[in-house]
Formats: sequence, structure tokens, C-alpha cells
Amino acid sequence: MNPIEGLKGYVREIRELEAAAALAHWDQRTYMPPRGLEARAQVVGRLKRLAFERLVSPKLDQLLKEAEAGLDAGSELDRALVRHWRREHDRKRAIPPDLYQKFVETCSRAEAVWEQAKAKSDFAMFAPHLGEVVELVRKLAELLGYEEHPYDALLEEYEPGMRASRLKEVIEPLRAELVPLVQRLEEGSPPPARPAGPFPVPAQRALARKALELIGYDFSAGRLDDSVHPFTVGLGPGDVRVTNRYSEDDPFPGLFAALHEGGHALYDQGVPRELAWTGLDSGASFGVHESQSRLWENQIGRSLPFWQFFHHCLVEHLPAFRGTGPEEVWRMVCEVRPSPVRVEADEVTYNLHIALRFELELALIEGRLSVERLPERWNQAMESYLGIIPPDDARGVLQDVHWSGGMFGYFPSYMLGNLYAAQLMAAAEHAIPDLWDKVASGDMRPLLAWLREEVHAHGRIYPPEELMKRATGEGLTPRPFLDYLKRKYDWLFR
Amino acid sequence: MNPIEGLKGYVREIRELEAAAALAHWDQRTYMPPRGLEARAQVVGRLKRLAFERLVSPKLDQLLKEAEAGLDAGSELDRALVRHWRREHDRKRAIPPDLYQKFVETCSRAEAVWEQAKAKSDFAMFAPHLGEVVELVRKLAELLGYEEHPYDALLEEYEPGMRASRLKEVIEPLRAELVPLVQRLEEGSPPPARPAGPFPVPAQRALARKALELIGYDFSAGRLDDSVHPFTVGLGPGDVRVTNRYSEDDPFPGLFAALHEGGHALYDQGVPRELAWTGLDSGASFGVHESQSRLWENQIGRSLPFWQFFHHCLVEHLPAFRGTGPEEVWRMVCEVRPSPVRVEADEVTYNLHIALRFELELALIEGRLSVERLPERWNQAMESYLGIIPPDDARGVLQDVHWSGGMFGYFPSYMLGNLYAAQLMAAAEHAIPDLWDKVASGDMRPLLAWLREEVHAHGRIYPPEELMKRATGEGLTPRPFLDYLKRKYDWLFR
Repeated sequence: MNPIEGLKGYVREIRELEAAAALAHWDQRTYMPPRGLEARAQVVGRLKRLAFERLVSPKLDQLLKEAEAGLDAGSELDRALVRHWRREHDRKRAIPPDLYQKFVETCSRAEAVWEQAKAKSDFAMFAPHLGEVVELVRKLAELLGYEEHPYDALLEEYEPGMRASRLKEVIEPLRAELVPLVQRLEEGSPPPARPAGPFPVPAQRALARKALELIGYDFSAGRLDDSVHPFTVGLGPGDVRVTNRYSEDDPFPGLFAALHEGGHALYDQGVPRELAWTGLDSGASFGVHESQSRLWENQIGRSLPFWQFFHHCLVEHLPAFRGTGPEEVWRMVCEVRPSPVRVEADEVTYNLHIALRFELELALIEGRLSVERLPERWNQAMESYLGIIPPDDARGVLQDVHWSGGMFGYFPSYMLGNLYAAQLMAAAEHAIPDLWDKVASGDMRPLLAWLREEVHAHGRIYPPEELMKRATGEGLTPRPFLDYLKRKYDWLFR
Repeated sequence: MNPIEGLKGYVREIRELEAAAALAHWDQRTYMPPRGLEARAQVVGRLKRLAFERLVSPKLDQLLKEAEAGLDAGSELDRALVRHWRREHDRKRAIPPDLYQKFVETCSRAEAVWEQAKAKSDFAMFAPHLGEVVELVRKLAELLGYEEHPYDALLEEYEPGMRASRLKEVIEPLRAELVPLVQRLEEGSPPPARPAGPFPVPAQRALARKALELIGYDFSAGRLDDSVHPFTVGLGPGDVRVTNRYSEDDPFPGLFAALHEGGHALYDQGVPRELAWTGLDSGASFGVHESQSRLWENQIGRSLPFWQFFHHCLVEHLPAFRGTGPEEVWRMVCEVRPSPVRVEADEVTYNLHIALRFELELALIEGRLSVERLPERWNQAMESYLGIIPPDDARGVLQDVHWSGGMFGYFPSYMLGNLYAAQLMAAAEHAIPDLWDKVASGDMRPLLAWLREEVHAHGRIYPPEELMKRATGEGLTPRPFLDYLKRKYDWLFR
């Protein structure tokens, strides 16, 4: 057999096992009855272990060597395939199975304790567990290897090729411009008052569905269900599902979460069928994936043209908005107000939440900061970035699940997503002169077609930096994002 | 490691893979978007292949040998465990993988053609495919091995220890008494007229839920969803799901299907946790499983005491029944009317549908009957058993999916379920003197507790014949079933 076909056949099994685990996970968070949890954990654990065993197996190494030997004559796709699996194999093989098992178990325990600690706003009970996780993550970083900084080894999991040094270069101008912008905006006039609720959940669900249809989500290849935390999951070609949650008091979190998850889902639905089961059938990175969700959530969903079209849908589903106009609603959803909580943050303050986390993660990984001093440092940074001090640790250092799960290096993906989204949108505006007229008439097809061609069609073939250069002419840069915010908020407060 | 623990650890992986496949199958029939089908088939195929490879592996043979060596000192459970997996391993290992693959593919094709052939009522287009399936099944029977009759090799898959000769002994008295009973009942007065529909599906869904709660189905360890064909699936301890379908014209099929599937689900929910993942965590056989569904559907659901309690629930959900009384509804649901279609058959005629299929299956497996002559023989048998001739092959020889799927030897399970149910119910009546008073007051707990202790608690530890002897004092016998029908219909037409 052709070595590439041999490799494809082997990794296909890994991807199919991962798809089975992903379905089990989706079900767990949507429809599984409460007493099914224990058995489910067993089944998911088994599927993941089987996939992991195959990933680190000598057999895969052998298949990769055979494929690598003849790669000069291979296509771009073949090279990407071999590069992807070689990287995954070598990284994961560096971790002794016992240590990996210990890491998984420690995180699992830490996450359970975190949940209680957050509920009680009791950092002290969480600290020893977080300490264990940080120690293990530092050990893993050494094993995974890096050139410049141990944090790079962690970043590689989420954003291949990214470096801590590069992130610092990007964060510096962001911080320098965003902090004064936030202060300036706080002095501006407040947004229009929102209509009073309650906003019935079934109407919000229908509105979310409408929004997903509008942006081009294919319901014959997906579903929209309820869950406690919104998420998107791809279960193979033709099956990319979105979940969402709704609050009776405020219809916007549910609507923007739908657009956000819809953006993720459009990416997965747009990956070409020939990449199915290859491992290249996903986004280029977590950051690029986040760019697609942020683009539809913010660049589109928080634009005036979007509301010029969508306002009538809002009013139709939620008649409480009957007395408002499109621009008024747009002003409501663009409100800037520093909040201690990341997931409630607006477009302007959001990246400052990430900059803060990045700074603290670096200090923890470098060993410059002890877990015990984390709450103090968190609150200091919060005050210097956003001018507020969290009322308690639950809304401060304990707010996110990521650290308890060992996901150090993940947070920057959110910021990269915001920056990439602005870069892509600037390029799309250039390529599609009547883009905003189309959006204002409810026609998202030109923009989606552009994203399909420039981003989705490539799956994971190109590293993120290369993908961005191909699509926008430039690698990662904060400039389009800062320009976008200034243009928008200058206009809003003209 | 203790050889039994080694065996348990190994088969656990098989069972977990099967649970993952079962979830994928449940999802496919409830929530999967249409375009997800192709990927789903791949994933399910992969999971089943991985489970099958483990089942027929030399490794399992080795583990079984080690466990068998020290079995004299083992518990009853240990012996059952080893017996179960030895039997499964030896049976399946006798089939060359290529032949098994060919069988699976042939059935898959035959099933697709059957679907079209049934829609067009065109037996000729199905015949060559059925011919291939029958040839392969005959070959498999030879490979699987038997003592008396090749059909026994097929029966073994569904009803361990059952023999064609034993089934004949049981069917003879059934046929001799049921045929004249049907004729006599046809001459009786017709049941009361049913209220006119439509009966809204949401109300029927709520009624089905009510019925499941009434019989003791645990919704914290299960769900009720819609599907085209009702089914029950166990996904591990604490997660046993039921699906159902409803017809706007007639509320009874949906209600009785819920009781039927609920009976299956109570069995799976009642299997003790210590049997989880052992392979003994299922019913003793397909026939015993069917006894649980039939017991709740017919012995209980079609009893007068049940309707003395449940009538007010029916009226509450479906007010069209307000003018009826409990006994009137009971008479409606006990109507006997020969129909050409098995799934629409009443309690009295149902076993005759099975007797007919058993007779024809035997003839096909023995080679006494060609596929081409099957429709003719079907219609002849139908006339002699039920006094009717199907209006077309769609409602005749083409009505069931089983043969296209190669499931020869499955049909008798339905009949065994009816007979076992009557045997168990007679024993329960003896053990619980006020059983029917309890049922009439809506208290199903004494009956469920008895079934839990006598049947569910044993999982698959005992062969069906032994289980029945322990629970009822007797192995398979048609007598309680015939007595039940006569008593009931004598009373109904008193």
C-alpha cells in the first residue's frame, strides 16, 4: 500500500474513536440522565485511552517514517498530514503514560474541588490542588520541550508555532491603547435603557435558530440544543452540533452565544469532505477557530448593518423590543463596562482579561509566583488593567475552570481569536466592496463564501501564521483590531 | 492478578465499546441530523469491529483458559461469567472473518433492497437478495455447530439452550387451541366503539410518561424520546433509555409500546450494579427480555385492574375518553381481530404469526423451501392459521425486516416472551395474594419487587430454562399462557 494511504487508514481509527468520544461528551451535556454519569465517564475514558494508545504507538511512528521517506513527491495535503501527526506523535510520546495518567487524575480532582471552592469563594481550599496542577504542568512543559520558554511548550497544544515572546509583542500595544480607551468610554454617555423582561426562553431559542440560519449554519448537518455552557462539537462530516443557554432576564447573552457557537460550527461545516478523518479536518488552531466565532459574534453581530436587518427578527420574537430602533439596539449590545468576569466582558475590555491571565500564567510557569499569592496578584492586575477590584474570589481568581483542568496556554487563544477576526474582517471588506450593504440586507453569503475559501477550505493544512498571511497578507498583528475598535467607538460616541 | 479479575478487565473493554456503539445507535435514531448518517455508519462500524476483534482474540481464549483452570473454587457468578464468554468466543471464532464480513455486507444490501421492495410490494426484486442471505445463514449454522438441527445453531444466539424440537412441542398445543379460539372470538360481539380522534401527540407523550412512571421506570436513570420504531437501549448502569412513537388517529399503539419498552427498560434498570460491564449485565435471553415487555404490556396493561386505576389518567390526558368507563376501555384494548400484520396483532393471534414464521424459517434452513415459493407458502399458512390472506406482499411476506438482516431464529423470542410472561405472572399471583388489588390502586411496587428478585437481579447468570424454573418452578410451558387467555376471554365474553 501507498505509505500515505497506510497512514490515513491508521489515523482514521484514531479520529473515529475521537468522534465516538465527542458524541458521548455531547450527550453527557445535553440529554444524558443524571445517573448515567459514572458509566459515561468510563466509556469516554476508554475511548480516549484507545485513541491515545494509537497516537503514541510505535506503529504510528513506523507509518510516519515510511510516509516521510517518500514525501518530496507528495502533495501539499500529504505533507500537512505527515507534519500534523508527526508533531502530535512526538509531543505526546514524550510524556510517560504514568505521568499523563497522574496529570489527568490530578486535574479531575482539582476541577471537582474548584467547583466547590468557587461556590464558596474559598481560594484556600483550592490552592493546594492548583499547586499540584501547576507543578505537573511545569514538568510536562519540560518533557514536551521548547526553544525559548517553557510556556511555549504549552502554547503549542493550542496554537502551533506561537511563542510567549510573540504574545508579549502583541499584548504591549493592546494594553497601551485599550486601558485609556476603556477609561475614555466610561466617561461617555450610557447606552439606551433595555426593555424589561422576562424574555421567554422558547422565543429566545427560536431567535437563536433564526440567527444561525441567517449566517448560513446548515441544520441538515447539525442541531441546536440546550446545555449549561454553550459549545460546538463536530462529530464527523455532516454532523456539527451547537448548544446554547438562555437567561430570562437578558436576551443578548443567548443571542450572541448562538452567533459565537455558530461561527465555530460554520468553520467545521466548511471543512472539505476530502479532509474527513485525516486529523486535518478541524481548525488550523484554537485561535483561528476562535476567530470564526468572534467574527460572527462581534464583527458582524455587534455591527450596525447587522441590526439594520436583524432588528425586525428581534422584535418579531421578543415584542418587548417593539419600541426600539435598530441603532438603539446596536448601542445596547455595544455597551462598554468593565466587569470582573471575563465571560461577561465586552469587546473592548475582553482582551485585557486575557492579558492579565497570560501575565499570571507566565509567572506561575516560570516559578516567579506562588499559588498562595495568586489572589493578591490577580486583584492588583485587575485594578491596573480595568480599574476594578473583584468583590470576591469567586468573581476573581476562581472564576474560570481552565487552570483546574490544567489548560495553561489556552487563554491566549481567545485574544488571538479577537485579533485574527479583525484581520480577516478587514481583508474581507477589501475583497467584497458591498459587504456591509449585503449584511444590512440580511445576505451573509458573500462573507461566508469568502471565509469558506480563505479559511474553512484549508482545514488544518496550514499553520495559523501561514493561513493568516495567505488570507490577509499579514501574520498576527493587533493593528486591525485596534483600528476597528477606535473607528467603532469614535462613531458610537461621535 | 486473579484470573477472574483479568478476564473481567478484558471483557469490560468489549462492553464499553458496545455501550459507545449503542449510544451512537440511539442518537442515530433520535437526534442525529440527516447528513450525519455516513460518518455515523463509519463510527459504529469501527466500534463494533474493535469489540468483535477482542471477542475472537487468542488473548480472550487464553484468559478464559486461565479462569477455567481455577473455576471449581469460583462463585456462581464467576462460573456464569466464564461460561458466557467461552460460549460467545467459541461461537464467533468459528466464523472466518471474511465470511462474517460478507454476511454483514450482504445483509446490509438486502435490508436496503427490502425497504424498497416492501414500499413497492415487489417480492421478486427482494428474492435474489434473500436467497443469498439464506445461503449464508445456512453456512453459518454449519460453522456454528449443533447437535440436532441446524436451526438450533441460530436459536442459540437469541435463546441459549433452546432447540427447534422443543419449540415444536410448545407450538403444537398453542396452535391446536388458539386457532379455534380465534374463530370463536370472531363470532362474539364487537368491542365498544372508540372515541374519535385526533389525539394530540404531546398529550400522548405525557400519557406514555405517566405510564412509565406508574410501572416504576426511573427517569433519573433513563429518558423517553421519539423515534420511528420504539426501542429500548441500555448504555450502562444508570442509563437505560426508551423511545416511542405516536399516531394521532389511535392513542393505544403509543401507550402499549411505552408499556412494552418500559418492561424491557425495567429489566435493564434492575440488573445489579456488580454485574456492570461483565456481559452478564443484560437479560438471560431475548425471550426472557421479551417476557418483561409482554408482561407489562399485556398481562398488566390489558388487564381490567390496570384500567380501573389508569382510566382517570387516560381521561385526564385525552379528554375524548371522558364518556367512557374503565371496563369499556379495557374491552377496547382487548379486541381480538386477525390481521395480516404481526406488529398490529392482538394477544390471541400474535403467537400464530410467530408459529407461521417459525415453520417457514425451518423449511428455508432445511432447504425444503425455495425463496421463490415463499410468498405462496406464506399466504397458505396465513389462511390456515388466521383465516385471512394478505392483500399484498407488503402486508404479507415482506412485512418484517428480520430476514433481510439475517436474523433467522429471532422470531421465536417473541412467542417465548408471551409464554414466559404468563408463567411469571401466574407465579407472581401466587406469591402476592393481593397483587391485583394493588394494581387496581395503581401500586405496581409489589409486582416489580417480585420481578426484581426473581428475574432482574440475576442478569444473565442463569440460562433461561434454569431462570424460569427458579422463578416459577417449571421450565418453558404454554399452559399458563393458554389458561390466561381462556380465563380472560371467557370472562370478557361471559
